[in-house]
Amino acid sequence: MNDDPELRRDPVTGRWVAIAPERARRPINLPGHAPTHRTNGERHPCPFCPGQEADTPNEVYAVRARGTRPDGPGWQLRVVPNMYPAVRPEVDAVAVVSPGLFTSAPAFGTAEVLIDCAEHYDDPTRLTDEQFGEVFKAYRARLRALASDPRLAHVAVFKNVGAEAGASLGHSHSQLIATPVVPELLQTELTGAEAYFAHTGRCVFCDLVTGDLADGARVVARSANFVVVTAFAPRFAYEMWLLPVAHEARYEALTDSRAHELASLLKRALIALDRVQNSPAYNWFLHTTPLHAGEPAHYHWHLEVLPRTARPAGLEWGFGCHITTVAPEQAASELRAALANS
Amino acid sequence: MNDDPELRRDPVTGRWVAIAPERARRPINLPGHAPTHRTNGERHPCPFCPGQEADTPNEVYAVRARGTRPDGPGWQLRVVPNMYPAVRPEVDAVAVVSPGLFTSAPAFGTAEVLIDCAEHYDDPTRLTDEQFGEVFKAYRARLRALASDPRLAHVAVFKNVGAEAGASLGHSHSQLIATPVVPELLQTELTGAEAYFAHTGRCVFCDLVTGDLADGARVVARSANFVVVTAFAPRFAYEMWLLPVAHEARYEALTDSRAHELASLLKRALIALDRVQNSPAYNWFLHTTPLHAGEPAHYHWHLEVLPRTARPAGLEWGFGCHITTVAPEQAASELRAALANS
Repeated sequence: MNDDPELRRDPVTGRWVAIAPERARRPINLPGHAPTHRTNGERHPCPFCPGQEADTPNEVYAVRARGTRPDGPGWQLRVVPNMYPAVRPEVDAVAVVSPGLFTSAPAFGTAEVLIDCAEHYDDPTRLTDEQFGEVFKAYRARLRALASDPRLAHVAVFKNVGAEAGASLGHSHSQLIATPVVPELLQTELTGAEAYFAHTGRCVFCDLVTGDLADGARVVARSANFVVVTAFAPRFAYEMWLLPVAHEARYEALTDSRAHELASLLKRALIALDRVQNSPAYNWFLHTTPLHAGEPAHYHWHLEVLPRTARPAGLEWGFGCHITTVAPEQAASELRAALANS
Repeated sequence: MNDDPELRRDPVTGRWVAIAPERARRPINLPGHAPTHRTNGERHPCPFCPGQEADTPNEVYAVRARGTRPDGPGWQLRVVPNMYPAVRPEVDAVAVVSPGLFTSAPAFGTAEVLIDCAEHYDDPTRLTDEQFGEVFKAYRARLRALASDPRLAHVAVFKNVGAEAGASLGHSHSQLIATPVVPELLQTELTGAEAYFAHTGRCVFCDLVTGDLADGARVVARSANFVVVTAFAPRFAYEMWLLPVAHEARYEALTDSRAHELASLLKRALIALDRVQNSPAYNWFLHTTPLHAGEPAHYHWHLEVLPRTARPAGLEWGFGCHITTVAPEQAASELRAALANS
């Protein structure tokens, strides 16, 4: 058995998973047992801090002071290949046409780490609005760059905050994993949105935004072009979705000024979440139209924030049934109150 | 807003979730931050211990000494309605025929707690083989009893061990949640198994058992009628499946002697898991043909054990992509070695 990552297909459900033994060697400086306290007991030096650039592969994107050199000091944000990737660019992209009982494939793809800031912040809300906006511009830049590879179908952009949400390093960072297939949950959304469009002639996300803005009960915050709502049918209590108010299929269309508008709105919502739920661990992830898939009228990009407000148990993992104990309307009301007092 | 549990349908994916505010009031005596140490700091009295029968609703099933009275002392195993149910028997079962944008329904169903033993054990492997067998006979008894209600389509039978796996009380127990719909993940398995059967004329689980027994690399342990293997495409490292070797569509067909055989085999595999992974939190859950769905040739009941060997992050929750760092063949080899030394 070598350590190359491998994709495997579950013979019953068809679900693909990655097996990446090398990732077991990645550094972990977040203690696992303090999920709500984000830096408690971290070990140093942090490979994402300035001065440690030699600990990461060469940068593929950076926001840095004029005249400074790649992989040297003077940066504010860096994107580097993941040292412990679950997928790898140097293997062949194999199309599995007719899966058998035990089907596996080399794990082709690209895995990148986006270091949000030079400061060793464990909490993304400590970034200035200006810094926070650069993170969302960097997502856009990498999506555009990765789209130039015709073998890639999708880029999963996500962030893990806190050990309980799967972060292994505290220094605020995001991840981008590009693969030749569209992942299962995004495909489920695309299929659902397509069915809704076929039935109604409208984008389900546009209807959701219109309905939520009219009703108001699940609205957490809004700006000129974006709205943050609590999810109507959440998997975790206080789950929030940020959506553009007007239809927009692709995140890549985001302008610079809207990136900053989005960042500022999201940051306010996250600060409210921290106040209401005592700085929970959370993930956020970007759902956008896959690469090379046009500008569908039925799909509308958005960002979901999933706080770890409960521990999924056998009902969730075994059957896919999620139970939460706080109604989204109650959650939104608490989040609005926290915003009003800030 | 009242506290009655409610089912809601996600407008995009169609995923149903339950919102059950009353469950926020359930007692929690497992401290959340000690996921691998199972009893550390539990509060008492435990509502599942003998002498506390008045703290639970009246029992619907029990294994108790001859001549003792229901809800009094003298029991070894009790099944009681859940005090903090996510679904309720007294509301109407409403069929949602044509879902709209924001669709919800009363949460009809039955939620039961199966107290595995009178002893305040936090670890199910402390049960004797005899006691452990009674748990699996009790699953069968409740499945048979709940099948008499034509409004119910499915019973989710599962167990949470350790706070990290979602347990809120340490005293070893299982849960049974009966609903009028077949849950999403079981439906995905049924659909996949049906497609495999249509293509090959064989049960995918039978083929999996045959393939794994012939190859041996993923076999953890076997008995005359059952086998425990590591999953070919696991969501968590050291994920194990226990299956009957011969085709059997329904768990309800289990004989008494096979219930004890299953229990003894599973207990050995769990003890090996505890040794290899330092007593991780885990769930197990039963996947069996839904109620009133006949004896399909394409579906084969089994029990899955999902140890919490990693913390799912944004890639898992946002995209449904699971990464593990230990190959199932390696995991099985470690588990076999632990069994050999026991």
